[in-house]
Amino acid sequence: MFSFALGIGTQNKKGEWLEVYFPAPLLSPDVAPVKEARRVLGNSDDRVVPFNHAHCQELAAALRGAGNDAQAQLAESLSNSQKPLVAVFLEEDVAPKSVPEAYLKLQLLSHRLVKPHGTKLEGIFGVLKNVAWTSEGPIDVEELSERQLQARLEGRTLSVTSVDKFPKMTDYVVPTGVRIGDAIRIRLGAYLGEGTTVMHEGFCNFNAGTEGPNMVEGRISAGVFVGAHSDLGAGCSTMGTLSGGGGIVISFGENCLIGANAGCGIPLGDRCTIEAGLYITAGTKVTVIDAEGKEVNVVSARDLAGQSDMLFIRHSVSGRVECRINKSAIVLNDALHSNN
Amino acid sequence: MFSFALGIGTQNKKGEWLEVYFPAPLLSPDVAPVKEARRVLGNSDDRVVPFNHAHCQELAAALRGAGNDAQAQLAESLSNSQKPLVAVFLEEDVAPKSVPEAYLKLQLLSHRLVKPHGTKLEGIFGVLKNVAWTSEGPIDVEELSERQLQARLEGRTLSVTSVDKFPKMTDYVVPTGVRIGDAIRIRLGAYLGEGTTVMHEGFCNFNAGTEGPNMVEGRISAGVFVGAHSDLGAGCSTMGTLSGGGGIVISFGENCLIGANAGCGIPLGDRCTIEAGLYITAGTKVTVIDAEGKEVNVVSARDLAGQSDMLFIRHSVSGRVECRINKSAIVLNDALHSNN
Amino acid sequence: MFSFALGIGTQNKKGEWLEVYFPAPLLSPDVAPVKEARRVLGNSDDRVVPFNHAHCQELAAALRGAGNDAQAQLAESLSNSQKPLVAVFLEEDVAPKSVPEAYLKLQLLSHRLVKPHGTKLEGIFGVLKNVAWTSEGPIDVEELSERQLQARLEGRTLSVTSVDKFPKMTDYVVPTGVRIGDAIRIRLGAYLGEGTTVMHEGFCNFNAGTEGPNMVEGRISAGVFVGAHSDLGAGCSTMGTLSGGGGIVISFGENCLIGANAGCGIPLGDRCTIEAGLYITAGTKVTVIDAEGKEVNVVSARDLAGQSDMLFIRHSVSGRVECRINKSAIVLNDALHSNN
Repeated sequence: MFSFALGIGTQNKKGEWLEVYFPAPLLSPDVAPVKEARRVLGNSDDRVVPFNHAHCQELAAALRGAGNDAQAQLAESLSNSQKPLVAVFLEEDVAPKSVPEAYLKLQLLSHRLVKPHGTKLEGIFGVLKNVAWTSEGPIDVEELSERQLQARLEGRTLSVTSVDKFPKMTDYVVPTGVRIGDAIRIRLGAYLGEGTTVMHEGFCNFNAGTEGPNMVEGRISAGVFVGAHSDLGAGCSTMGTLSGGGGIVISFGENCLIGANAGCGIPLGDRCTIEAGLYITAGTKVTVIDAEGKEVNVVSARDLAGQSDMLFIRHSVSGRVECRINKSAIVLNDALHSNN
Repeated sequence: MFSFALGIGTQNKKGEWLEVYFPAPLLSPDVAPVKEARRVLGNSDDRVVPFNHAHCQELAAALRGAGNDAQAQLAESLSNSQKPLVAVFLEEDVAPKSVPEAYLKLQLLSHRLVKPHGTKLEGIFGVLKNVAWTSEGPIDVEELSERQLQARLEGRTLSVTSVDKFPKMTDYVVPTGVRIGDAIRIRLGAYLGEGTTVMHEGFCNFNAGTEGPNMVEGRISAGVFVGAHSDLGAGCSTMGTLSGGGGIVISFGENCLIGANAGCGIPLGDRCTIEAGLYITAGTKVTVIDAEGKEVNVVSARDLAGQSDMLFIRHSVSGRVECRINKSAIVLNDALHSNN
Repeated sequence: MFSFALGIGTQNKKGEWLEVYFPAPLLSPDVAPVKEARRVLGNSDDRVVPFNHAHCQELAAALRGAGNDAQAQLAESLSNSQKPLVAVFLEEDVAPKSVPEAYLKLQLLSHRLVKPHGTKLEGIFGVLKNVAWTSEGPIDVEELSERQLQARLEGRTLSVTSVDKFPKMTDYVVPTGVRIGDAIRIRLGAYLGEGTTVMHEGFCNFNAGTEGPNMVEGRISAGVFVGAHSDLGAGCSTMGTLSGGGGIVISFGENCLIGANAGCGIPLGDRCTIEAGLYITAGTKVTVIDAEGKEVNVVSARDLAGQSDMLFIRHSVSGRVECRINKSAIVLNDALHSNN
C-alpha cells in the first residue's frame, strides 16, 4: 500500500473537486486499518471514495479497532465538517487521475513523506483545476465574477490572491522548523527540509525543495533539489525541468552558494559557489583554472555538471567566465579539521 | 460614445471616492440604453453621476426597455447594495478627471476592451488616491490607524496588504484563460491576453500586458506590451515608460524569449532572444555577427530596435556583447515548415 | 528615559507573548506621566508590565493628570480590549530581552522615531518567536495545525500568509507619505522616510530603510540605509549585514541609482550609478577611468567605498568592469546651479 488519507475539500457547483485538505496523510500505512476503512466505505476498488457525516463514527470505530487511534480521532473530527469528505486509497504509486489523488501526492511531498522525484506526478497539470484562491476560500474561476458581485453588494471585497492550479503550501502544511517570509511563493508540493528559511524573495515550486538546513532567497524551480547547508542568494535563478533547463534535472550538493542575482543551469556537487550576478547556463563556455592559477582548458559548463569544489566567476578585467578551485571551500574545510 | 458603466464603490469619511468596481463596463455602447440611463439619473452632462437604491428599479426598467438586458439585470442587483453607487458616461476618450473615470478606464484595459496605449490615461497618478488595501476593504490612509486600533480592540488584526494608488487587478477582473501565481503583482489596468500565465515572480503594471498566449515570470513595466508566444524568464526586467526607458516604448513581437534575470531596454521584433543574465540597455555597444559568424560592426543597441531574429549574448570568453542571427528561431521555423 | 509605550498583543496557549501592537510609542518621554504609569501599575522595576482592563481608567486618569492626553486617551480605549495588555518601560536603550521590548523597538524604527542602527537590537532573533501570520491573526506555529483543521471543519480556509519571526510592517505602522506595492515585503522594523515608494519588487528588511523621498524597486537588506533621492532599480540587490556583506555596513548617499537587476556590496557616496545588470562586490576588480577617459588604475571595489560621483559599468566590448566619473551626475549639478 502506497498511501491512505482522509480529507476534507471544496467542490464547485457541479460537484467537481477543486481541492482537498488531508490533515494527516499516511505513507506505506498498515494494511489492517486501511482494509477496515475500505469495508466501512463500501468495499469498492475506487481510489477516491467520497463519504459523509453518517460514516464518520463507524469509520472512527473501525480505525480504532484496527489500531490507528490518530486516524480514528481524525475521522471523529470530520463528523462535524460542513464541507465534502473523501478517502483516498493508493494501492500503488501511480500517476494521479483525479484532484483528490493529486492533492494527496502534493501533501505527501510537503509533509516530507516523499522527496522530490519520489512519487509519480505525470499529467498533474491536466488533472488539477484552475482555482481562484480567495479571502472566502477556493472558488471555481467560472463562478468567480458572480461571487465577487455578491460580496460587493453585501459590503465586502472578495480578495483574490492567486488564480492557479496549485495553492500555497502553508494553507495545507507548515512543516516543523521552517520560516517563510512570503508564503504565497511556496507552492503545495514543495519539500522544505527542517531548518529551511525561505526569505521573501525566495520561491519554491512543487516537486522541488531543500534537504535542510538552508537559507533560500532565490528561486527553486520545479524539479530542483538543494542539499544541506547550501544557500541560494536573493534573486538567484535555477533552471527547472518545466522550462529552460530542458531534460537536465538540476540539483545542488551540500555547502554550495549561488550568489545574489546569479543563476545556474547545471547540477552542482558539494562546496560550489557562483559569484553574485553571474548566470551559468549549460552552454556557457567556461575557462577552467587549476589550483596554481594556470589555465587548463575551455569547456561548456554542462561538461562540469555535478563536480564539487568549483568557484564560478566572471573575471572583472578580462570579462571571461572562469571556474576555479573553490578556495574558500578549502579554507572552510581546514577550519573544520582544526576543530578536531 | 466611448464607454458607459454602472459601478459600486468605496468612499472615505469625507464622501470622496477611493475606488469603484464596475462589474460589466461597456465599450462603444449602443446609444439608446445610455440615453435612457441619462434620463433616469437626471439628464445632467456630468461624466460621473452618483445614484442610490431608489433609482435602481427605474434604471433597470429603462435599460431593459432600450434593449440591454445584461445592464438591466446589473442595475437590479445594485438595488441590494450597501455601498455607494455610481454611473459613468464617457462620451469621448478623454484623460480621467475623477476616481470613477480612472477606475473605469483601468477596468476597460483589464477586461481586454482596450489595449495598452489604447485609452488616454494622462494625469491618472494625480487623480487616484493613495489607499490602504486591507482585509477589511479599501481604507483611506488617513483613516487607517484609527481603524487598526479599533480592530485590535475587537480582537482582530486588520491586515494591510498594500498601500498604493492602484489595487490588484484580480479584485476587479479575472479575465478568461489566465493563471496568476501571486495576484498582488498584477495592477488593475494590466491587460493579460487569453492563455497568459504569470508565475509568482512575474509582474505586470497598468497600461501594459500580453497578447496571449504567454509565459510571464519577469516584470512587464508600465507601457510595455508582449506579443503572442513570447516568454519572459523569471526575474527578467523590462524598462518602462515611467522610469528608466525614457521616451522609448518597449514592446516585444512574437516568439521572443527574454532569459531569466536578463533585461531589455529596447523594443524587439519577432523571434528574438536575450540570454539568461544579460541586460541590454539602449546604450549597450553590441557587436553584430552575421549568419556566417563574421563580425559586421559595433552599434548601440538602440540602433537594432524593433528588428527580428536577433540573439543577444555576452560571449563568455571575450566578455563582449554580441547580436547573432537567432539560429534556434530559424530551426523552429524549419520544423514548422516540415509539418506541412 | 529611552521609551515608554502601552500595547495590546497576542499570547499563545501557554501565555507567552507572540507579538505586541503599540499604537503610539514614545521616544524620550517626559518623566512625569511615565512615573504615574509606573505607580498605577504597581511600581515594579520590570521593563515589561502586563495589565488588564481594571487598570485602564486609573491609568488614563494618571496620564491625563501628568499632562499626556494622547496616552490617556489610548489607555481609555484599551479598557475595551479583548486581548492582553502590556506596558513597556525602557529606562535605557538596551538589547531586547523579551517579545514586548523587541516589538517596541521595531515599532520605534517604523514610526521613524529612531533611525536604522539607532537602537540596540543585539540578540533580537533569539528573543522573537516564530509565528504563523494568518487570516485569523498571529498563531503559535505549534498550535497551527489544530487551528487549521478546526477552521476547515467550520467551513473556512485558515490562510497562512507568512511563517516568520517578523511580521509585516503595515499591520503595525503605515508612516505618512509612503506607497507600498506588496506590503508583505516590508518587515516591521523597516524605516521608510517620507516620500518613499516601494514597488511590488521592492523589499525592506528591519533596521534598514530610506531617508525619503526614494523610489525602491530593489531589495534593501538588513542594515542598509539609502539617502534621499536615490533610486533602487527593480530587482537590484544590496548586501546586508546578516549575510553576504560580512562586516561592511552598506549605505548609499543621495541621488544614487542602482540599476535594475544590478547589485552592490560596497557603500556609495552621493550621485553614484551602477548600470542595470552589473553586480559590484567588494572584491570586484574595477578599472578606474578619469574624466578625460584615461585609465588610472585597477583597484578592488572596496577601495572605492564611500566615494561620490562614480559610474560603474561593464564595458560591453571589452567585458571589463569600469568606474568612470559620473557624467550625468555632473550634468545634473550644472542644471541645479543654473536655477540659482
